[in-house]
Amino acid sequence: MSVTAAGGFTAAGITAGIKDSGTPDLALVVNTGPRRAAAGVFTSNRVRAAPVLWSEQVVKGGQISAVVLNSGGANACTGPKGFQDTHATAEKVAEVLNQGAPDTHSSGEIAVASTGLIGINLPMDKLLPGIEKAAAELSPHGGEKAAIAIKTTDSVHKTAVAGGDGWTVGGMAKGAGMLAPGLATMLVVLTTDADVDSPALDSALRAATRTTFDRVDSDGCMSTNDTVLLLASGASRVTPGYEEFAEAVRTVCDDLGRQLIGDAEGASKDIRVEVINAATEDDAVEVGRSIARNNLLKCALHGEDPNWGRVLSAIGTTSAAFDPDRLNVAINDVWVCKNGSVGEDRDLVDMRFREVRITADLSAGTESAVIWTNDLTADYVHENSAYSS
Amino acid sequence: MSVTAAGGFTAAGITAGIKDSGTPDLALVVNTGPRRAAAGVFTSNRVRAAPVLWSEQVVKGGQISAVVLNSGGANACTGPKGFQDTHATAEKVAEVLNQGAPDTHSSGEIAVASTGLIGINLPMDKLLPGIEKAAAELSPHGGEKAAIAIKTTDSVHKTAVAGGDGWTVGGMAKGAGMLAPGLATMLVVLTTDADVDSPALDSALRAATRTTFDRVDSDGCMSTNDTVLLLASGASRVTPGYEEFAEAVRTVCDDLGRQLIGDAEGASKDIRVEVINAATEDDAVEVGRSIARNNLLKCALHGEDPNWGRVLSAIGTTSAAFDPDRLNVAINDVWVCKNGSVGEDRDLVDMRFREVRITADLSAGTESAVIWTNDLTADYVHENSAYSS
Repeated sequence: MSVTAAGGFTAAGITAGIKDSGTPDLALVVNTGPRRAAAGVFTSNRVRAAPVLWSEQVVKGGQISAVVLNSGGANACTGPKGFQDTHATAEKVAEVLNQGAPDTHSSGEIAVASTGLIGINLPMDKLLPGIEKAAAELSPHGGEKAAIAIKTTDSVHKTAVAGGDGWTVGGMAKGAGMLAPGLATMLVVLTTDADVDSPALDSALRAATRTTFDRVDSDGCMSTNDTVLLLASGASRVTPGYEEFAEAVRTVCDDLGRQLIGDAEGASKDIRVEVINAATEDDAVEVGRSIARNNLLKCALHGEDPNWGRVLSAIGTTSAAFDPDRLNVAINDVWVCKNGSVGEDRDLVDMRFREVRITADLSAGTESAVIWTNDLTADYVHENSAYSS
Repeated sequence: MSVTAAGGFTAAGITAGIKDSGTPDLALVVNTGPRRAAAGVFTSNRVRAAPVLWSEQVVKGGQISAVVLNSGGANACTGPKGFQDTHATAEKVAEVLNQGAPDTHSSGEIAVASTGLIGINLPMDKLLPGIEKAAAELSPHGGEKAAIAIKTTDSVHKTAVAGGDGWTVGGMAKGAGMLAPGLATMLVVLTTDADVDSPALDSALRAATRTTFDRVDSDGCMSTNDTVLLLASGASRVTPGYEEFAEAVRTVCDDLGRQLIGDAEGASKDIRVEVINAATEDDAVEVGRSIARNNLLKCALHGEDPNWGRVLSAIGTTSAAFDPDRLNVAINDVWVCKNGSVGEDRDLVDMRFREVRITADLSAGTESAVIWTNDLTADYVHENSAYSS
């Protein structure tokens, strides 16, 4: 599982002392080759953390030899000092990895990712020694520890794996709040031992995130730090067909995305919003997102109240093509709204389980989309009013 | 105060039995003239309640002789039957008001407004007799009772008054949840005894709502029923200057809008978001709304945590003109973020009071806007998960 499920990768997760809690807070993932192809996608927030600005440039080169990730501080909104800290972090990783193998690593191929509180500078006096400690612990079995070290408010670490004949795609993710698309707020590192070049990695990764992480919207809040990286070592010497490879990447992203929703801060329901019979896929996504972000509906679902009126009021705020008198809505497969009005008996809806399925039929075409979200709970409020994150 | 502060109006508020609670649920406001000029603005939600569809047509004629409002049911998403019920309600009001004064009232000049649960038909067997009861109680002092009868989850009724030499503008409002612009979710009836024609009323009302009710965004949820009506009786025989009149209308709308925020479901903070130095007013509104709708920030403010990082992450999701490195943010006048990075000490921010002021300086121009919102609380979740509204 995790980032060392695929051959050609070592990883470590250690406690550098960045977090006051004393829990693991620094992860290192190293591609041992033979190839170092890579791709990445980043937050579409225009306020971007220093490590995002840095790693975007790294990814443009198409090669990543290592990724260093820290929890305990986002290094976002930290000005020029924050960018210098990210640069120094990459330099340190290159320096440490080059010990015994000079000139193997360049800081320009070291990606950096950070997560935690916005607006504070990282404690570099702890982070830099932590890199030495992590490098000393690098192991082909270190994937789980790396996944644990990137947790913030996550209650569990998240890993997934897929693959084909002789090759593997594995990955780890963290994210529990500020989860909304473009991307969901999270750090994700995917690795593969398939022998794939960076243009194909980029294409597969963008196709996968578009319908997975980009459709995870726990709380409507977009982060400054979202990063998804895909690294290929080529260690399996197998080059799968593109479609098969892309599907494996999508499977891992989908699995991790569902785990993010399942562990979202304070949530008691995982809500699958499916919009069907839309005129365009964009319409389906817009309507799905509007439903997923409606606080009143999210409260109702928390209370196990199949309040379809709030679904309709959310649909009505969009620019999607639809006729209000032809809207149909099902909650857990009971069509409680038909033709924009009262449908089947709402008392037929069984909402005792964690998963809730909302189906919104726009009667306007043949396109569809699925958005995942959570309910809105008092626990979410408590966690996010008591914790400065 | 209320809708009978201005001369030329009578009103009543009674218990028709629409609500199970037995509290007042039907209000009637009658313009006794000499003129019956009127204007109205309605929700921009594309899913619109039957009374909205009806009253929009009434307003197009420029004359309203009476408004009937009920709480206890929104008559939204109720299909053709819902529209027939609204029509029957207007017919009944005209019939009752014509007793003793035949042909004075036509149903085509009777506006209807409803509020309450979406997706249930109104109990017409209670509503229609209620109209007779309300008509019997019409009084030039009935404004307060009318304001009380339109409450749903409102803890207090809301009225306001302004005016000039010899003329008055008064009004009543209800709204506590599903409060978001285009318009805030609410029913509002404004009356004036100024001698003003309907084009001037329309102009003054649109100008007023644009910068008041349209910038009240308690929970980001737009209603199916929002209605704001302005009725002029001309009873004062005074025609004020347009600017003076428009300012009085704006003052009453602003006052009522602030009362809506102050009484929003579960809220513990009234949050004034001011965006300054924007390139355009639209930019300022877009940024203000994005900040006002950020659940994580609303939780932080509930916890009295001046979490400016969440303000920046919200600004970053907009399309407004700004440079991330030139953003400044003050919370309660302490500039905790300067040039996109750490500013004054956040411990200087005193957040003990109900009102919180956020100032976002985009450093991109000279335009500004103010949006009012509330914090997100466990009480909001409780109220909206336990109550099917």
